[in-house]
Amino acid sequence: VPHHWNRIMPAHSEWELIDDLRRRCGTDPRVPIGIGDDAALVCAGPSGVIVTTDMLMDGVDFIVGTTPVELIGRKCLAVNLSDMAAMAGIPTAAFVSIALPREGGRALADGLYAGLLPLAEEFGVAIAGGDTNAWEGRLVVSVTLMGEPTSRGAVRRSGARPGDRVFVTGPLGGSLASLRHCRFGPRVREAVALHAAADLHAMIDLSDGLATDIGHIARESGVGVVLDAASIPIHADVDPAADGKSRLRHALTDGEDFELAFCVSEEDAARLAQHPPAGVTLYGIGSCTERPGVRLQSEGREQPLDVEGWEHRFS
Amino acid sequence: VPHHWNRIMPAHSEWELIDDLRRRCGTDPRVPIGIGDDAALVCAGPSGVIVTTDMLMDGVDFIVGTTPVELIGRKCLAVNLSDMAAMAGIPTAAFVSIALPREGGRALADGLYAGLLPLAEEFGVAIAGGDTNAWEGRLVVSVTLMGEPTSRGAVRRSGARPGDRVFVTGPLGGSLASLRHCRFGPRVREAVALHAAADLHAMIDLSDGLATDIGHIARESGVGVVLDAASIPIHADVDPAADGKSRLRHALTDGEDFELAFCVSEEDAARLAQHPPAGVTLYGIGSCTERPGVRLQSEGREQPLDVEGWEHRFS
Repeated sequence: VPHHWNRIMPAHSEWELIDDLRRRCGTDPRVPIGIGDDAALVCAGPSGVIVTTDMLMDGVDFIVGTTPVELIGRKCLAVNLSDMAAMAGIPTAAFVSIALPREGGRALADGLYAGLLPLAEEFGVAIAGGDTNAWEGRLVVSVTLMGEPTSRGAVRRSGARPGDRVFVTGPLGGSLASLRHCRFGPRVREAVALHAAADLHAMIDLSDGLATDIGHIARESGVGVVLDAASIPIHADVDPAADGKSRLRHALTDGEDFELAFCVSEEDAARLAQHPPAGVTLYGIGSCTERPGVRLQSEGREQPLDVEGWEHRFS
Repeated sequence: VPHHWNRIMPAHSEWELIDDLRRRCGTDPRVPIGIGDDAALVCAGPSGVIVTTDMLMDGVDFIVGTTPVELIGRKCLAVNLSDMAAMAGIPTAAFVSIALPREGGRALADGLYAGLLPLAEEFGVAIAGGDTNAWEGRLVVSVTLMGEPTSRGAVRRSGARPGDRVFVTGPLGGSLASLRHCRFGPRVREAVALHAAADLHAMIDLSDGLATDIGHIARESGVGVVLDAASIPIHADVDPAADGKSRLRHALTDGEDFELAFCVSEEDAARLAQHPPAGVTLYGIGSCTERPGVRLQSEGREQPLDVEGWEHRFS
């Protein structure tokens, strides 16, 4: 948290807050210079650094006063861990920047870190810096997460090939209504285990809904994807009383599942299905085609999947 | 700009905006994976990565509708370049995250990048990713900048020693009133040249006012600092008609000067004063002491400098 702590100070002084965070975040051999300077110094391996960043806003990604504040803090790091998982990266250090509402800001900051720090510890992430501010607006949190690729390299969205099989790591839908969008376990370990077990051609984490996100893989890889409606796992969070079509739509478009979707060769698919890595659950949901676009196969018929999912609009 | 572009899309589609930014940001050999995946991959040297991050908010760091939007975009990168300069780091790649007001958001984003991209190019910074969102609130921009240390390593705040001389790289005060806080030239090249010419014991960039920022060096280094009132360079932006005491207070506390303050041994100080690196202007403004605290020496008398500067408060 290198700078601009002085933008924030309450009854407690600036020094107190920096010292408090330094204590709570500790030191880490991978971060020779951490909280308390103009910038941090983070160690890096010869293969480079994987970097991902997500900005979350009150009223969009959570609601202050409704969503428990510790879960807000947890989510702000978790979504970045999920992006790191999508590259099969191993997270190392995070930078946490916050715009706090002036009123009640210090308590809010404490609650955010109370949710964020245990998750950081669980995944071996050093908090290396950030920027904390107060303003008249609503809470905004921006986390940048660094990590390193495994010896097999980072997995991109662009390597899927026609004939590849498509998998997801868990059931989908109903995440927003259930608070699962804050409580989910990022699939970091699963991604690394899968990457060690098979040649992952392409991977993405499902933040915007399967229909949208699998479209990213299709487009970046220059392939099409056919999803098998009957194989798509529907989460227990989706109303079991709803009709089947509505339940499927939730699984395809609700978003914020934070499961992984990935593509592997038919041979690797057969091997993974038979011997999935320990602790990894896999659902085969479709395959890649030469013909572009995302289509849904149901009762022998194929129809194009409108890519909608999470789309926030402005003028 | 790896993720959540879909949070934003207007009449223009998500793909259009990603493609537009990919085109405008280009590719860079230091960023093997850039905009358009879940995360970026950035090359790193054996000495590690310097990372700094700043979050800027409408109504605090600029005012949308008053501050020209290109200057807002420029400032959001420039303040990070200034932090990089304070470590004597060489910037490489930036991540730009934005919360756009829903109304007029796309035009605002275009204006921000129109100001930011030329500065990125000037300093050799690749735009490697980010996160763009729309919401009901005011504009927030969070930039994370990566860089690499020179062969002499990163310069910290903590290495000043009693007897060191203190310099600044330019005149101070009046930055906020004059728009200099958006137009300043980050002292990246100056920092690298100084670091090559002398053993910089400690350095900081002046964002919160000399009185506050020199206090950071004093505290982190475990020294005191005595500033010589008559030697502190006052910027032409400070009202020349004001009385001397008021003008000095502006130079000490206005903030957002984005000049560098640094400490070197007496021998290096003499050498630098006689032969400053090309293009670098230096003002000797004081020295470090065993006795802690920051004091102002004026007409033979010393008085403690209240560390105020920029302090935003919340309850």
